[in-house]
Amino acid sequence: MEARIRMPKLQERIMSADDAAGFIKDGMIVGISGFTRAGDAKAVPMALAERSKRLGTPMHIQLWTGASVAEEVDRVLAEAGIVTRRLPYQSDRLLRDAINRGEVMYTDQHLSLTVEMIRAGQLGRLDVAIIEAVAITEEGGIIPSTSVGNSPTFALMADKVIVELNTRQSALLEGMHDIYLPGARPHREPLPLQEVDQRIGTTFIPVDPDKIVGIVLTDRVDHFVDMVPGDEETDRIAEHLLDFFEYQVKTGQMPPELYPLQSGVGAVSNAVLSGLKHASFRDLTMYSEVLQDSVFELLDSGVLRFASGCAITVTPEHASDVMRRLHEYKDKIILRPQEISNHPELIRRLGIIAMNTALEADIYGNVNSTHVGGTHIMNGIGGSGDFARNALLSVFVTKSTAKGGRISSIVPMVSHVDHTEHDVDILVTEQGLADLRGLAPRERSRLVIEKCVHPDYRDAMIDYVERAEQRGGQTPHILEEALSWHERYRETGTMQVRRPQLAGQR
Amino acid sequence: MEARIRMPKLQERIMSADDAAGFIKDGMIVGISGFTRAGDAKAVPMALAERSKRLGTPMHIQLWTGASVAEEVDRVLAEAGIVTRRLPYQSDRLLRDAINRGEVMYTDQHLSLTVEMIRAGQLGRLDVAIIEAVAITEEGGIIPSTSVGNSPTFALMADKVIVELNTRQSALLEGMHDIYLPGARPHREPLPLQEVDQRIGTTFIPVDPDKIVGIVLTDRVDHFVDMVPGDEETDRIAEHLLDFFEYQVKTGQMPPELYPLQSGVGAVSNAVLSGLKHASFRDLTMYSEVLQDSVFELLDSGVLRFASGCAITVTPEHASDVMRRLHEYKDKIILRPQEISNHPELIRRLGIIAMNTALEADIYGNVNSTHVGGTHIMNGIGGSGDFARNALLSVFVTKSTAKGGRISSIVPMVSHVDHTEHDVDILVTEQGLADLRGLAPRERSRLVIEKCVHPDYRDAMIDYVERAEQRGGQTPHILEEALSWHERYRETGTMQVRRPQLAGQR
Repeated sequence: MEARIRMPKLQERIMSADDAAGFIKDGMIVGISGFTRAGDAKAVPMALAERSKRLGTPMHIQLWTGASVAEEVDRVLAEAGIVTRRLPYQSDRLLRDAINRGEVMYTDQHLSLTVEMIRAGQLGRLDVAIIEAVAITEEGGIIPSTSVGNSPTFALMADKVIVELNTRQSALLEGMHDIYLPGARPHREPLPLQEVDQRIGTTFIPVDPDKIVGIVLTDRVDHFVDMVPGDEETDRIAEHLLDFFEYQVKTGQMPPELYPLQSGVGAVSNAVLSGLKHASFRDLTMYSEVLQDSVFELLDSGVLRFASGCAITVTPEHASDVMRRLHEYKDKIILRPQEISNHPELIRRLGIIAMNTALEADIYGNVNSTHVGGTHIMNGIGGSGDFARNALLSVFVTKSTAKGGRISSIVPMVSHVDHTEHDVDILVTEQGLADLRGLAPRERSRLVIEKCVHPDYRDAMIDYVERAEQRGGQTPHILEEALSWHERYRETGTMQVRRPQLAGQR
Repeated sequence: MEARIRMPKLQERIMSADDAAGFIKDGMIVGISGFTRAGDAKAVPMALAERSKRLGTPMHIQLWTGASVAEEVDRVLAEAGIVTRRLPYQSDRLLRDAINRGEVMYTDQHLSLTVEMIRAGQLGRLDVAIIEAVAITEEGGIIPSTSVGNSPTFALMADKVIVELNTRQSALLEGMHDIYLPGARPHREPLPLQEVDQRIGTTFIPVDPDKIVGIVLTDRVDHFVDMVPGDEETDRIAEHLLDFFEYQVKTGQMPPELYPLQSGVGAVSNAVLSGLKHASFRDLTMYSEVLQDSVFELLDSGVLRFASGCAITVTPEHASDVMRRLHEYKDKIILRPQEISNHPELIRRLGIIAMNTALEADIYGNVNSTHVGGTHIMNGIGGSGDFARNALLSVFVTKSTAKGGRISSIVPMVSHVDHTEHDVDILVTEQGLADLRGLAPRERSRLVIEKCVHPDYRDAMIDYVERAEQRGGQTPHILEEALSWHERYRETGTMQVRRPQLAGQR
């Protein structure tokens, strides 16, 4: 254990998860490590749920994280009814249901912004931080595990810090992190990062060792989950986008190594990244949030030169292989705080190509990333806003239909707006790619219909636009009809209008 | 003239506005200086309209500017039917009508982004730039007049540059500008600006003198317009906001000098700024777009220590006084390119308090800044997105009603989204101030109704929210009703529901 806890006096603070959970009192704000189910504090949150049960009267806490944490954490705490407020991102089914029932107050935030608000005192005082680590340095610095998330600010701002020292996480992770904390405003220095592979900070999270009240030894693996597999449609989306990139290079609008890539998580993103293997690009770089399966394949094949991210989130199938070969990636990967991986300053400076997934988009290019039917949260806005707003090129991808064709993912008006037309340059479905840059809304609608809308919905959409344009306007709409496709789905189970002859046959 | 055109060989290029307009051919893209009617190229655009008339067949051009230009420019060109595409902002009534009729394609953009897109070749090739200047340096550098706008990038990227040397503009403007052009991506250096009053560039716009094909001498004054005067409601909005700031200082959440202020243009903003005179704040700074009347009053009274902006736009009443006393403001004002005044990197770094005006807002804090009735553009998104997204504190202000109470500015769902709930921290009407930081949508709606909604609409709004919440969701809505307030206004001339007893009396 001396190799993992190198500050002797801290070795005395090893305790059980249950004892550590005892530091958490009713009404407290608790911040835990974790980003896309990587490197989350696991043992203490679970012990807290047990403890709360034992107490009889359930405890209530506010839970802050980096992004989504393992289902076993969010789910267990949600089931125990402990969490009253949750931020800034989640993706657990049970917690989501509790949120949509109005039982948990969920503050969905741009992932780069949470720590700014915490440090500015805008979200309340953080009582306890629980951070998973692979080691503690001689000075008491915390070496995080598979993600960095918001942990550096949690460690800075919390009254008490609990470390979950996870011996199952690879010791090779040490040295892969780059921890940087921006100074206080208004007299902050520029972030010194100018290159994707540049180090600007320390390999550990600085923390006052006296604040470390407990160290809990664990050996739980990250609870990664399988990805929805790709299909013909995700492949076609990838093809459209890769064709576009190749054309940009051929016509000199982009360099052969493109620009640093950001990619959301999911089947479409994975298809796009995998497609890069077969394209003619070389020496690519990533400046993204999550490093997923395809990133490691691209590093292996040499197509990708370097990847900067905030978390390593791979499927169970690939996890052990990636972790075993971590030494091969030592010089090809840096893990940063999400504030830095998603920072507007850096995204704008580096000229990122941002690729994110839309739940639905409208004919004018507004995007809904979060709310099913305009009301029920799926996961959250995540980093999509950080990237889309500041990117050199902002791409959104979605299949043109969902639910077996009963939902058109392109609608007259999105039922919830996460990204406005100003932040959406390129929209891609399996039908095609619409390059919306520099176009006015009336041009955008025609192009989106031509390129992206599924043929089953095209006529209805053209009909809508033509009638809307008769009413005039920069962004023509018929307000009483604009959300009628969603209403129709809600009432009839499909967005498709029953054809009159069919209706007559009834 | 030697004092104004200091590079001898350029003195030979003086020509008439008509001759200069001759450089502009059908189908060209033309970029002109100008931001909020300050420092716009005036003579050549007007000559172009005349020339087009003479030719019989109207010419067509795309017109790029900094932001809004004088009505005499946008109006004259719109009347002549010359402009087929316009970006990134406008505020002329005639042009607006042509846009809403679909005759002019209007690309409404975040004001910091236009030049990034131009330099990345995403908007096409700029043929001719026309830039108003107060002088040309020995090296051919252009000293802009009352605004900087997008002129540095226009001068860099245009094939040909025409200078409108305006002898009516004060020669004292020389030295007040700070011109900085960020480098190419992805290897760009950090913007070195760390303080509101810091100079990071040159006092002139660098340009290859061989590109200057013509210099036109003019003496037209900036066509500033009167501001809608404040009233009791704008005063109350200001009071609410100033009370909030004072409380922030009193409780140690903000320093006595607050943070650098950004303020939109208009009666409410002016009321807030004027209110600062009577409050206890001192040594304030501004990092904003437009320096309007109240900014100079605050500088005069010593409340404001320094103001950084992109344009000086004062009312006709104050213009001559401000220009006459410009020497008094030499050390208190810097005019920057709009890319720098609005840069996400700097807004985030400096920790700006952003104050912008909403056309309408909804109960969840989404804001519509641009589209009347969800369809017809008023002006454009301007810099509000640059500031609101990256600010330390993002404030939106609006009167709770419009059109004599027949419109509620707070609605169940905005008919067009420019700023999502994630970018709106504080919402203020004359009714009160809602501090939405860290709240979930279901909490936001209750607070907005309590603090901001006009009493005439409060019951209807509570009724809507309660019924919507029965359907569940993170952001409860009844989609088929969400935009019904707008429909009702369209059909009946008021958003108010006629009370049954009144309906019965008819």
